[in-house]
Amino acid sequence: MANTMPHWDLLITDARIASMRAAAGAYGIIEDAALAVRDGRIAWLGAAAERPAVAATQTVSAAGQWLTPALIDCHTHLLFGGNRAAEFEQRLQGASYEAIARAGGGIMSTVNATRAASDAELLAAGCKRIDALQRDGVASVEIKSGYGLNAATELRLLRLAKQLGELRNITVSTTFLGAHAVPADFAGNADEYIDMLCSELLPQIASDGLADAVDAYCESIAFSAEQVNRLFARAAALGLPVKLHADQLSDTGGAALAARHHALSADHLEYSSTDGIAAMAAAGTVAVLLPGAFLTLRETQLPPVEALREHGVPIALATDCNPGTSPVASLRAIMALATSQFRLTPEECLAGVTRVAAQALGLHNDTGTLEVGKRADIAQWDLQHPRELSYWLGLNELRQLYVGGKTVHPNN
Amino acid sequence: MANTMPHWDLLITDARIASMRAAAGAYGIIEDAALAVRDGRIAWLGAAAERPAVAATQTVSAAGQWLTPALIDCHTHLLFGGNRAAEFEQRLQGASYEAIARAGGGIMSTVNATRAASDAELLAAGCKRIDALQRDGVASVEIKSGYGLNAATELRLLRLAKQLGELRNITVSTTFLGAHAVPADFAGNADEYIDMLCSELLPQIASDGLADAVDAYCESIAFSAEQVNRLFARAAALGLPVKLHADQLSDTGGAALAARHHALSADHLEYSSTDGIAAMAAAGTVAVLLPGAFLTLRETQLPPVEALREHGVPIALATDCNPGTSPVASLRAIMALATSQFRLTPEECLAGVTRVAAQALGLHNDTGTLEVGKRADIAQWDLQHPRELSYWLGLNELRQLYVGGKTVHPNN
Ligand SMILES: [Zn+2]
Ligand SMILES: [Zn+2]
Repeated sequence: MANTMPHWDLLITDARIASMRAAAGAYGIIEDAALAVRDGRIAWLGAAAERPAVAATQTVSAAGQWLTPALIDCHTHLLFGGNRAAEFEQRLQGASYEAIARAGGGIMSTVNATRAASDAELLAAGCKRIDALQRDGVASVEIKSGYGLNAATELRLLRLAKQLGELRNITVSTTFLGAHAVPADFAGNADEYIDMLCSELLPQIASDGLADAVDAYCESIAFSAEQVNRLFARAAALGLPVKLHADQLSDTGGAALAARHHALSADHLEYSSTDGIAAMAAAGTVAVLLPGAFLTLRETQLPPVEALREHGVPIALATDCNPGTSPVASLRAIMALATSQFRLTPEECLAGVTRVAAQALGLHNDTGTLEVGKRADIAQWDLQHPRELSYWLGLNELRQLYVGGKTVHPNN
Repeated sequence: MANTMPHWDLLITDARIASMRAAAGAYGIIEDAALAVRDGRIAWLGAAAERPAVAATQTVSAAGQWLTPALIDCHTHLLFGGNRAAEFEQRLQGASYEAIARAGGGIMSTVNATRAASDAELLAAGCKRIDALQRDGVASVEIKSGYGLNAATELRLLRLAKQLGELRNITVSTTFLGAHAVPADFAGNADEYIDMLCSELLPQIASDGLADAVDAYCESIAFSAEQVNRLFARAAALGLPVKLHADQLSDTGGAALAARHHALSADHLEYSSTDGIAAMAAAGTVAVLLPGAFLTLRETQLPPVEALREHGVPIALATDCNPGTSPVASLRAIMALATSQFRLTPEECLAGVTRVAAQALGLHNDTGTLEVGKRADIAQWDLQHPRELSYWLGLNELRQLYVGGKTVHPNN
């Protein structure tokens, strides 16, 4: 007969908790707290004085340190071959974008390097970037394809992204971003490329379960609203949620377009109109802000943070880890940048990489807050207060990282 | 009879070297290289094929990785009690500087917390910040006093700063920054405070060998040029070199003032005039740029990088690690910020935290480049090219850190 007595696998005592639950007060703070795990999920949490008398297989003290939800990086392109440091250096030495493109730079150089890289090379490079994220307390990461731009490599990237999750004990959400740029063999034929994505790639991705969502880059230099409409309609027919790179360099109506398709998120948003933001609010679409690209590109048009707040659009933050516009592999650095560049408060920053980031990935029933029933993805920090997570740039106060209730030791 | 045969204590083979020697070409690169250490100093380095036949006690392979000079953080205020995260949060929530000052915030809150902290508390907090710096490959750090603002605490801070060096195997340069702000008991009497520093504190610091340099904050909200003149004249009489916080918020003629006193460095410099920069060039004064404070304060006035280049003023970079305007403990993050904010090239950034930073501390005969006779302070990196050190924000490619030829394992 199976043991049906209540028990816990893990009990963490002497903790301070910032649950980040919505409507639980600032940070969802519980002082003098404890937290219990069973079968990889949070079985109980609350004030230590109210803890029920349940036996625990393992009990550890948090020594008065803070527990928060483990962090979530909800927008990355971290799986790519090569890097673009040489082009980065040339630009700082004064070379023009045109000269660099003529010399074979830009996104197509990453596409070529990615197509040429072996699976082992891509996995090794991806692991290094994930190791860096984990060291900041990240337990869930989104990884987009989009440096293949042909059927074989796009499918390979989605499969490798899933493999990264197994190699590094991190939850990976995969996003199909075939509509990242128009590949050379479709130059001047973006419509045909979208046709190919809709008729060939999307159905296979859906039937093989390779992607958790479909993304597109809507910008005058990439795909038009009409092209995105077609792609997203096909994704919806196949049961795949969508998200959009929107309004980063100009107002193309991306926010409203994302809302029209009930996108999980619209990302970047520097140039979004108030109407677009109102549409996002009505559709329940999350705003994902990307301070790393803002910094790297020296953007001056700030995302409409006040309008997002006024309309109640939840704000997530992400690294946008990519070799061209955001060579960033630290979500803590992103939090600090979001305070200085975008004037987000420390609580907004922490919500943006926990509760709201989970919502942006459709994972809000599984992670993003410390609540009974959610996966026990927990970061333990040596801090005076969780606001310090957005204050220090470069300190690492992480002392434990639990993924599904099991301790993970970040590499390096 | 002592062994007088030539021998090496350590030989590092299969390395790629970026020596960062001036006038040795870009980055001072030597491919297929090796490096030898004897008595804590570099005994030989060069192409492996030219290596002399000398016996080595220990031989290690760098496995094709890059060796650079270990990094140097030449401007920090990292020894302080408390932190200012609460005030940081209030400001982002909309509180005015005045409201925060009325509530006891600002630099005086750090002075109070520092005076109240025990030696053990200050050392523990300082160690965490140094651990973070070492993880970025830092082997030398400057630490300023200036949160004591009375004789007892200023002397205590300088002594504790020296102790930090022993606790963490890092070279500490101490700087006396009694002229950081006017303490409350001298309110309205900055002249008397400077008198006290000149007549009481400076002589004791000089005779006890507690400081390697004297610094001051020259700004309308701090000390005038005339007051700085008096302080620096006294420092010179006591044989102490000087440096200056100059022209950060307005052009007070700080660059020229620093040059007049043959300062080691003038730091910040956002508002410095071309004449001031020409004077620095003539005096051999290094420019220390501080991207962390620029970011945190959302400054818009860029430091005059082009004029510094034209006049040949060497540019160093530093964290300015402090609780109010630069809560930054990563020199790698500073390098990335210097590329995006100030458009420094990756080579300028690496020189700024190695060769030029050593010059800013008067340590150029000991460290800052890989050259025979210098201390074997060496960082080993898993990179394709040293330009990547300024490209990635948040990756940690450090694989070995040698201080005086001995391996140091950064905490955490
Ligand atoms: Zn992106
Ligand atoms: Zn400073």
